[in-house]
Amino acid sequence: MKTRDRILTCSLEQFAEQGVGQVSTNHIADCLDISPGNLYHHFRNKQSILRELYLWFVADFMRFLRADEHQAVVSSEFWRSLELCFQLVQRYCFIFRDANFVILKYPELEADFREVVKQTDWASRNFCNQLASNGIIVAEEEDLQRLATNLHFITSQWGGYGAMRAACLPAAAGRRQTNDPNNLRLGYAQALSLFKPYISARDRDELLAILADYP
Amino acid sequence: MKTRDRILTCSLEQFAEQGVGQVSTNHIADCLDISPGNLYHHFRNKQSILRELYLWFVADFMRFLRADEHQAVVSSEFWRSLELCFQLVQRYCFIFRDANFVILKYPELEADFREVVKQTDWASRNFCNQLASNGIIVAEEEDLQRLATNLHFITSQWGGYGAMRAACLPAAAGRRQTNDPNNLRLGYAQALSLFKPYISARDRDELLAILADYP
Repeated sequence: MKTRDRILTCSLEQFAEQGVGQVSTNHIADCLDISPGNLYHHFRNKQSILRELYLWFVADFMRFLRADEHQAVVSSEFWRSLELCFQLVQRYCFIFRDANFVILKYPELEADFREVVKQTDWASRNFCNQLASNGIIVAEEEDLQRLATNLHFITSQWGGYGAMRAACLPAAAGRRQTNDPNNLRLGYAQALSLFKPYISARDRDELLAILADYP
Repeated sequence: MKTRDRILTCSLEQFAEQGVGQVSTNHIADCLDISPGNLYHHFRNKQSILRELYLWFVADFMRFLRADEHQAVVSSEFWRSLELCFQLVQRYCFIFRDANFVILKYPELEADFREVVKQTDWASRNFCNQLASNGIIVAEEEDLQRLATNLHFITSQWGGYGAMRAACLPAAAGRRQTNDPNNLRLGYAQALSLFKPYISARDRDELLAILADYP
């Protein structure tokens, strides 16, 4: 892997795990066993790395949605697609969790962040509309809008909630592990449960079967 | 008002508006037009102020819940109580929104924060159980648990979501105003909408009428 990509991959992991505020460029250089000078050769500062990761996220998210658009017709494909989407957002959880910190500290990242929010909000609305137009859920327009807002809310904020709950566990139980896979599973199940009241009779058993596998 | 209480009230407002990381004890002394020395006479440092505000929140929240316990029987009282609770949490929105920052920076506040999470989680579960036992909602046990988790999630994280959305508005439209009353109203309506699929036939019209008043 090229050094530039190694820097980005390592930053992504460290930001997600420890929070943007806690990870410096020196820290990243240390992790990769390269000199700070080598890192600065590729990125001028921390905000250049952040900006590139925002672009990575939007590109991944869009590629994922385009793939989805041509495929999802039956309910199982929608739920699988929601799960993958949740996993993707979780990999980049720092974008949403540390948003206030980042935008206050690096106002020049605001436009990039705005693009992330715009795309994810649009995707949530599209997902709910597609569920309805494929007859998987049956909901009035007003309910569909509230569902879409709740889906965007849960997708973008669940990482912060998980971090909050993790901070309340005793140290031995693995607190600070903000990208805990169990928390991800719980968030996905909570998102799925939003659709349960609106599920069509045809697709009800399948949704219940998936939910039964989750915490 | 005593100086001590003035310091706490001012800190509460400033933390909510600007974020804990952005507000120093000097900033608070300035706001109140007192000397930093006078402030330090009452509070040793910023974390002592934060701890006292956590205690204030838990006391307010508990007082509110106890009052509720003896009164709420019919659905309108429950929805009113949820609205007041949302407003209270919003006043103290920094507790949840800035939790990760605060706990990493002031680990000695962790036990106080844990108490906040415990009490609010318990209150969400109790609220949903009371709705069910008063026949206002009809839900299976599993759905009741997911509702309670979603209610706790929305109550504690909506402030962060609002801040995120506010950060995406053009400056002129009032971004950075993290305690925007419209955002509070939207959050309350989203929380109410969680219960709509489970509402009893008897109480349905009342819930719909309240929701119709919200954005």
